[in-house]
Amino acid sequence: MASLLADAALLEDGFAHNVRITHADGTITALQHGAMAAPGDEHVPGILLPGMANLHSHAFQRAFAGLSEFDGGGGDFWSWREAMYRVADRVTPALCTPIAAWLNKELLKGGYTSAAEFHYVHHRPEGACYDVRTEMAKALAAGAAAAGMGLTILVGVYETAGLDGSPLAGGQRRFRNDVAQALDMAVSLQEGSISAGLALHSLRAVPPASVRRAAEDFAGPIHIHVAEQRAEVEACVAALGAPPVAWLLDNVAVDHRWCLVHATHAEPDEITRAARAGAVIGLCPTTEADLGDGIFRFGDLAAACGSFGIGSDSNVVLDAFQELRLLEYGQRLRVERRNLAAAGEGHTGRALWQQAALGGAQACSRKIGRLAPGYRADFVVIEPTFETADAAADFVLDAAIFAAVRAPARHVMVGGAWIVRDGTHIREAAIDEAYRHALKALAA
Amino acid sequence: MASLLADAALLEDGFAHNVRITHADGTITALQHGAMAAPGDEHVPGILLPGMANLHSHAFQRAFAGLSEFDGGGGDFWSWREAMYRVADRVTPALCTPIAAWLNKELLKGGYTSAAEFHYVHHRPEGACYDVRTEMAKALAAGAAAAGMGLTILVGVYETAGLDGSPLAGGQRRFRNDVAQALDMAVSLQEGSISAGLALHSLRAVPPASVRRAAEDFAGPIHIHVAEQRAEVEACVAALGAPPVAWLLDNVAVDHRWCLVHATHAEPDEITRAARAGAVIGLCPTTEADLGDGIFRFGDLAAACGSFGIGSDSNVVLDAFQELRLLEYGQRLRVERRNLAAAGEGHTGRALWQQAALGGAQACSRKIGRLAPGYRADFVVIEPTFETADAAADFVLDAAIFAAVRAPARHVMVGGAWIVRDGTHIREAAIDEAYRHALKALAA
Repeated sequence: MASLLADAALLEDGFAHNVRITHADGTITALQHGAMAAPGDEHVPGILLPGMANLHSHAFQRAFAGLSEFDGGGGDFWSWREAMYRVADRVTPALCTPIAAWLNKELLKGGYTSAAEFHYVHHRPEGACYDVRTEMAKALAAGAAAAGMGLTILVGVYETAGLDGSPLAGGQRRFRNDVAQALDMAVSLQEGSISAGLALHSLRAVPPASVRRAAEDFAGPIHIHVAEQRAEVEACVAALGAPPVAWLLDNVAVDHRWCLVHATHAEPDEITRAARAGAVIGLCPTTEADLGDGIFRFGDLAAACGSFGIGSDSNVVLDAFQELRLLEYGQRLRVERRNLAAAGEGHTGRALWQQAALGGAQACSRKIGRLAPGYRADFVVIEPTFETADAAADFVLDAAIFAAVRAPARHVMVGGAWIVRDGTHIREAAIDEAYRHALKALAA
Repeated sequence: MASLLADAALLEDGFAHNVRITHADGTITALQHGAMAAPGDEHVPGILLPGMANLHSHAFQRAFAGLSEFDGGGGDFWSWREAMYRVADRVTPALCTPIAAWLNKELLKGGYTSAAEFHYVHHRPEGACYDVRTEMAKALAAGAAAAGMGLTILVGVYETAGLDGSPLAGGQRRFRNDVAQALDMAVSLQEGSISAGLALHSLRAVPPASVRRAAEDFAGPIHIHVAEQRAEVEACVAALGAPPVAWLLDNVAVDHRWCLVHATHAEPDEITRAARAGAVIGLCPTTEADLGDGIFRFGDLAAACGSFGIGSDSNVVLDAFQELRLLEYGQRLRVERRNLAAAGEGHTGRALWQQAALGGAQACSRKIGRLAPGYRADFVVIEPTFETADAAADFVLDAAIFAAVRAPARHVMVGGAWIVRDGTHIREAAIDEAYRHALKALAA
């Protein structure tokens, strides 16, 4: 049992001052605001936020961050995907661990305390299983554990190369996994105490019968890429008679288990229905900009009181504050107004952080994302900018998202342990060194 | 005379290795690639870029960065402008210097080595001139000098409150300056060795006769806000019979002196004509997103081989690399493809950096923005990310813009002197302290 006293903390109904938080075994046990310091309290100067969940990450994609920004290296999403396949073809379990460790270390410094790894590179390059079918999954989990990140591993289902049922070939052979195998893997990982869910890659890759089986047989989180690219939506309409989100809503029990990742080209009616069904929309603003996907219709989600969270996805930007800024900026550019996430009530920063933390928690199906007894002791501490030094805590959070001149997360605690102190991870040097070696081996 | 030897440097036709640069009195005197180290050479590990020009900055606006992100504090551009006027109403010459010093210090750390200050807060709050009419301009210049930033001060012309010729009132009284006064001020500042130009605030604020007089009587840089908001374009069409860019092209000699700031809602034909006229388009991607302006038609400018540069404008983001990323990302979101600035040739990062540096140099009318004899010795040194440690220099620049996990500018030289070393400004602590005091005084 330990306790800390924060100058200010973001509780469910807003910022409170002098908040005393007691935690034991990684979980918040008690919380009091307007508290006096008690003996043994650790004083936390600054403003304490619940840790952010990163609901969509492909860890290995960090290994080629910055290496596809040239013509021929990615004129569009599909040519970028070819570059991604070349890396996917070369990663091994031994390389996954240091890559995931480094990535998750940086994500922690960026204010994320949980990550959902959408994991689809399962097998040996030629397509045969590793001796232990979950070897790649476990290697990724080991990397996240080395960094101290709370992980939910989403076991990929990948059966076909397209909506016509064409078979997997080339780089996709490593991804082959049917829904029965994925369910087995998720159960076996969970028995090993790793939090697990299902990652239906997309309607391109998972036929209707398998989507139905997942929805019927699995009680945990089910994530799926949907409506990221117009070509994908058109192919889905041609093959299944409806765009992806509508098809899911019409054919399976979409509910609170579901995270619809991207939904960039979903129509207003699809968004409203998904929101009412209780699904989370997984927005990845940086990757959706980087890949030229387009801008999600956030206003329709907000109007339906729908849930959303954020994901670092291709992992070119690893800071939750920047991700939220780009989410809001995309909407400002779309509708030509300001402060859209606030939706007429209060501060944009708080609206973005709280909603994304709760949506991310739902997508991970874990007790995270809020400061309350029974929730995991995951905290991010930010400090005021010069301009907000004497301002209320709401402005400090606004400034961390919209006007930071350095990474806002100063200290980060996961499950009751400080992992980042003064912007530095506790195992920075060792993780850097292992990553450097892994990248050399990947390039060799 | 001093010399340095860089591992790689961005020359006009691309990256070269082992580049020896000699400079004297702040200017590059000789440049050789494939060079051997000579006695007295300073070795610069990493990749050396020409410094970036920030072609559009309102320094005082930094003082409320992060303080307008709530409903009621800025539902749209016009309500944000009210918040901005409240700060503009309170700044004094004594406060301008430490604000400009801090802002420019951070901009230097962000890779900018020159700034064009679009300066329109000239007078005392009630509208009377200071004893010296250029007192505010000189206070801003003193701040930039304290930080070591190369400055071009653009003297604002602000005559009317709207296209109907309505008089200035309230917060705008401090801005009142007719074109004759602005020309006098620009000349007097230049005699004091400050580089100066004209800032025609907008067609709202500067009547046709004054725009014509500026174009006829001034040989230096002329900047103007144009087509930032749809309401402004509509008002211009109603009052002058044409949208702002077309009106300028039809009525004055728009040429290489002109910087058209924003041009967000300019039509393709206007963009093509402005490009052919030799004007620079001043893009401020962060501010244009923050204020919900919209996304510029970059493709039309590129097709006409037009010039552009970047500006930090409202100064919420102070990093040139992030500004260029958002420029490219906005275009990717607009046209749903990748690597647009590269326009089919090579690396996106290099295309963005080189074009923006040259366009910014033109907008400042100074010999900056390229590594060549006769140009100012302004350098930004970046280092590889982990992923680009063994990659060619082009990838390192791509990664600095698109995949950085910390501020990419490690060392910055302005006019032959190192101002930023290892990410730290040489006068960091003193400038921070003065800024802290200034903000307290501003709030008091």
